[in-house]
Amino acid sequence: MDQPVQRKKFDVAQLRQAPLFAQCDAQTASHLTQLAMVERHPRDRILFISGDEATSFFMVQSGWVKLFRETLDGTQAIIDIVPPGSLFGETAIFEDDTYTCSAEIIEDAELVRLPLATLKQEIERDGTLALDMLKSMTRHRRQQDKELEHRNLQNAPQRIGCFLLRLLPTGAEKNIVLSLPYDKALLAARLGMQPETFSRALQRLKAETGIRIKGAQIEIDDVAQLAGYTCAACTSQFPCSDR
Amino acid sequence: MDQPVQRKKFDVAQLRQAPLFAQCDAQTASHLTQLAMVERHPRDRILFISGDEATSFFMVQSGWVKLFRETLDGTQAIIDIVPPGSLFGETAIFEDDTYTCSAEIIEDAELVRLPLATLKQEIERDGTLALDMLKSMTRHRRQQDKELEHRNLQNAPQRIGCFLLRLLPTGAEKNIVLSLPYDKALLAARLGMQPETFSRALQRLKAETGIRIKGAQIEIDDVAQLAGYTCAACTSQFPCSDR
Repeated sequence: MDQPVQRKKFDVAQLRQAPLFAQCDAQTASHLTQLAMVERHPRDRILFISGDEATSFFMVQSGWVKLFRETLDGTQAIIDIVPPGSLFGETAIFEDDTYTCSAEIIEDAELVRLPLATLKQEIERDGTLALDMLKSMTRHRRQQDKELEHRNLQNAPQRIGCFLLRLLPTGAEKNIVLSLPYDKALLAARLGMQPETFSRALQRLKAETGIRIKGAQIEIDDVAQLAGYTCAACTSQFPCSDR
Repeated sequence: MDQPVQRKKFDVAQLRQAPLFAQCDAQTASHLTQLAMVERHPRDRILFISGDEATSFFMVQSGWVKLFRETLDGTQAIIDIVPPGSLFGETAIFEDDTYTCSAEIIEDAELVRLPLATLKQEIERDGTLALDMLKSMTRHRRQQDKELEHRNLQNAPQRIGCFLLRLLPTGAEKNIVLSLPYDKALLAARLGMQPETFSRALQRLKAETGIRIKGAQIEIDDVAQLAGYTCAACTSQFPCSDR
């Protein structure tokens, strides 16, 4: 592979933007940033494949990364779409140093590549980092719980509504214009819907909540109306405590 | 509440049966077992409610425990059904000492109540325990990933098939008789299906794979036939590596 395409500086302040490293001690921060490499990857590049030996984890600086697995007949299951500011691949240290999913760049991306061996050493040395990793996994677990719950309780329009509500800036109430972060086909796949189901559900969401859709722009006049419809079939109330 | 109903001994060997504590050091094992209380709880008892302050976590010795959340209108989302040998409630130490779901006894149960404060202290002191907790959460995360994936890729009969395959003893191939661990209504809810969907899916699974259902007994003449049908829409192959 022709990476890294470009080297750039990555400093401790940038590392600390990831919640996992916000509180880590100076040694962890310095060891990780010394070995970090900033890489640019074009859209459609496969970064790794499920089952590959894992030596790096990644922090997304810009762009989007799709994590997925494939069935024997090639059908894809999307595990996650990782946004800027987030990490991926770090749990491979608990999976016999193997990636358990594949990663593909879906929007030209700048990633920071960080060494898993260093992360492992620092977790073993620094109890605070181990606890922060546990907290980070607990957050992830809660999100997955919620997503599974929504598959049981919410209909398709409500699941799209939930996705939109989670994109809103804190405190947003009236006359909001949102941009979808990636295209509708990918969003449908992320939400586990067939494209036709997604289109029908989006129409129904418009009818139920008065939102307007103009290409990738969503206009929401009244957040309370969207939340009232969406969160009726959820065990949390808007705004979600895990946002 | 009238618990504990009965006190029994709980020793280090029993504690170590939980994968989380299999490798913990002698101090952790001794601190936890000294403070452990064995409790018997009848079916239908609510152990705690989502939002309750959490001071204990639990190990199931016998019986089954349902973890769930409720929407404002009282609809339940089942998070998990915890089998004998497993822990629950332990992640509350990363959730501001609050339970994030409710727990109900669904089959007369013997539980071991263990103090969260001690677990927290020992995790901070013993790096190995922190790593084992991370491994345990990674296993859970992988199972949740798989469950979300199945919601996207598998049809309802395949999801029941997957549940049955995971109940099989390792190496089982021919002429197996399985007992369902809990009743079909609960199983349907656990799999996120309406009772009618579950019944239709079970009939279709019978037709597709030749299994026979006699009350709570499932007869499987040929595991390969069940796995061939079920695992075609999964990114793993039978037998699952996480079993």
